[in-house]
Amino acid sequence: MKIIEGGVTSAKGFEAACCEAGIKYKDRTDMALVFSKKPCVSAGTFTSNVVKAACVQWDQKIVASNEPIHAVVVNSGIANACTGKEGFDACEKTAKAVEKTLNVPYSSVAVASTGVIGMQLPVEKLTAGVEKMSTLLDSSIQAGTAASKAIMTTDTVNKEVAVTFEAGGATVTLGGMSKGSGMIHPNMCTMLAFLTTDLAISKSLLQEAVSEVVKDSFNMITVDGDTSTNDTLLVMANGEALNKKITEKGQDYESFKEALFYVCTFLAKKMAADGEGASKLFEAKVVNAKSKEDARILSRAIVGSNLSKAAIFGCDANFGRFLCAMGYSGSDFDQNDVELFFESANGRLQVFDKGTPIVFDEDKALEIMKADAVTVFVDMHEGTDEATAWGCDLTYDYVKINADYRS
Amino acid sequence: MKIIEGGVTSAKGFEAACCEAGIKYKDRTDMALVFSKKPCVSAGTFTSNVVKAACVQWDQKIVASNEPIHAVVVNSGIANACTGKEGFDACEKTAKAVEKTLNVPYSSVAVASTGVIGMQLPVEKLTAGVEKMSTLLDSSIQAGTAASKAIMTTDTVNKEVAVTFEAGGATVTLGGMSKGSGMIHPNMCTMLAFLTTDLAISKSLLQEAVSEVVKDSFNMITVDGDTSTNDTLLVMANGEALNKKITEKGQDYESFKEALFYVCTFLAKKMAADGEGASKLFEAKVVNAKSKEDARILSRAIVGSNLSKAAIFGCDANFGRFLCAMGYSGSDFDQNDVELFFESANGRLQVFDKGTPIVFDEDKALEIMKADAVTVFVDMHEGTDEATAWGCDLTYDYVKINADYRS
Repeated sequence: MKIIEGGVTSAKGFEAACCEAGIKYKDRTDMALVFSKKPCVSAGTFTSNVVKAACVQWDQKIVASNEPIHAVVVNSGIANACTGKEGFDACEKTAKAVEKTLNVPYSSVAVASTGVIGMQLPVEKLTAGVEKMSTLLDSSIQAGTAASKAIMTTDTVNKEVAVTFEAGGATVTLGGMSKGSGMIHPNMCTMLAFLTTDLAISKSLLQEAVSEVVKDSFNMITVDGDTSTNDTLLVMANGEALNKKITEKGQDYESFKEALFYVCTFLAKKMAADGEGASKLFEAKVVNAKSKEDARILSRAIVGSNLSKAAIFGCDANFGRFLCAMGYSGSDFDQNDVELFFESANGRLQVFDKGTPIVFDEDKALEIMKADAVTVFVDMHEGTDEATAWGCDLTYDYVKINADYRS
Repeated sequence: MKIIEGGVTSAKGFEAACCEAGIKYKDRTDMALVFSKKPCVSAGTFTSNVVKAACVQWDQKIVASNEPIHAVVVNSGIANACTGKEGFDACEKTAKAVEKTLNVPYSSVAVASTGVIGMQLPVEKLTAGVEKMSTLLDSSIQAGTAASKAIMTTDTVNKEVAVTFEAGGATVTLGGMSKGSGMIHPNMCTMLAFLTTDLAISKSLLQEAVSEVVKDSFNMITVDGDTSTNDTLLVMANGEALNKKITEKGQDYESFKEALFYVCTFLAKKMAADGEGASKLFEAKVVNAKSKEDARILSRAIVGSNLSKAAIFGCDANFGRFLCAMGYSGSDFDQNDVELFFESANGRLQVFDKGTPIVFDEDKALEIMKADAVTVFVDMHEGTDEATAWGCDLTYDYVKINADYRS
């Protein structure tokens, strides 16, 4: 596997465009289109929230069908959630605008939205945006980067990544973009992520790989514990790499999964570190847990705790909060088995040793916690499974951003 | 039932004292003792966190036994959680100090702590505190109030309440005190609450009433989603009202439960409104849910969401966040059945009508949300059950308090 520059336009046959549709933001791009002339197989995972945005319900139908897909249209600013029948009509009209301008069936067009819930989309602006973008489609890296910027809401940086790997006698490219950065919590986060690959793969194996990889990547991040109405991960594979099509598990499938895991984890960590108001990446690594699921639950509880997050912001080695969060996670364990360490680029320090607090050097702890990325490392001494979760600190800016998000 | 002035010393035969033990705070009281010379039956509920503080484990044994109890010793500043064997020894030494000074078995002495996790208690200061307090015991209202102040941590106001009711041919008194105000989340909150009553009641019925009432009072509040290691609700009943002892359900039991519900709900709401950094009480009332448990889950999800809490702080009628929180609560429902209103002393406004957002008057919404207590009222139109949950807004001060709690 090789990491390359790029994003959604890196794989062969994918183009992107964006525009200033004026949906809610002013003077910035707020719509993006990703397009493959060649039909793609698709896979996806969507929010577990029972209040699903209209676009999520639209996309779920598309991904569940066996029909190919060609495009995804994304807007930022308004989420198209809690919008009733008018919201569904907006999805259909957007897809039909793509059908009209790009000559692909509207049922092959996915849509995604992010922004304020409970507000109707201005459909005419969306269809005008589609019309404009269809004339701007471009396969350059720059077009992919521009698209990744158009889908941002409170994100402070755009997020994209691309890799190549060998499979079925060909060099395959996989790229993607995503946006956060509030309403982020496992199953899934408030996130939109779009991955494109020129891999030839069966639809069922694509979905299987995506469903498995998401568990240890996107579903292991949390910003605020709020699971959005709009979470969408959509993967499109158009087969243009001309590899021998993957139709069963084996080396090629594993190579793809490795690349997929890298891309998903990269984007997930980027989202965690760019959580609303975040000043640093907060990682929890739990090792020697009695099961994989226990390791996931424990690590997510640590990075999900408001008190832990506030301590990370304050560079306060208040390790009891991390143990407390583990304690209410739902996983059962004995605190007398547990060792807890703080880690960062500035060092490593044990603070809790099997039931007993360690008197530690506060200056050293402060030094470690001042880093841009801080890890809480926990050895459960109960088994052999491990997991890592990512989040961010809780800061004044999180409150500021969210106390008046609509204005 | 009649509300009276007072707290833990209101019921006959209960005395309280407090002192400046210098455990962690300076120039303030930080220890309290509640004592009944007459033996009491006890009941309690404790944190569901698997990382339980030493004092919680100590008290659970006492409440589970059939032996009477006489006293509870409380300290603020250090939680005695994650403290290993030394932590247990501290509980025993504290209880033994009470045995020595007040001549009751040490196994009849409950202990409770609140404060920083992972730090050892200075046992000599605790035993000296007990010695001092045993000479200061007093049944005045003032002594109860002083005790309620000594157990505060980041609380900004002390919390106490008392009521009288008629049962078994006597006027019975029930009083209590509690403290919050961070690490507050259902099952249970980071809370200590101590209730005293002169009611004569069997131990099993006392526990049954407490277990039932806690579900719709203390377990319906949340400040930050963090379930503490130390949560304790302890109820002591010494029988000095000389009512005909309650040994079976009936009118007397119901009268007690009504009083208990009032006292627990009063203290719970006080804790929610005084959540760390809170500027207002945030209430969610869910009616016509398909089950009681669904109503509880939905209302708790609303007040527990960081995004909802931030919107309440910002007086932002961003109702989609409340629907979103309901959607990931774990309760299944159809958004097309749901009506949502904002309510406060300043008015009432519907914002969502069975799947469709309502275009509402933003000025009126702002007026309603500016109040000191704001309610999100949700009609599920799915059944007949209802529940109310209480929390607070998420403010800059929450972050400030928790980013550097230890110093």
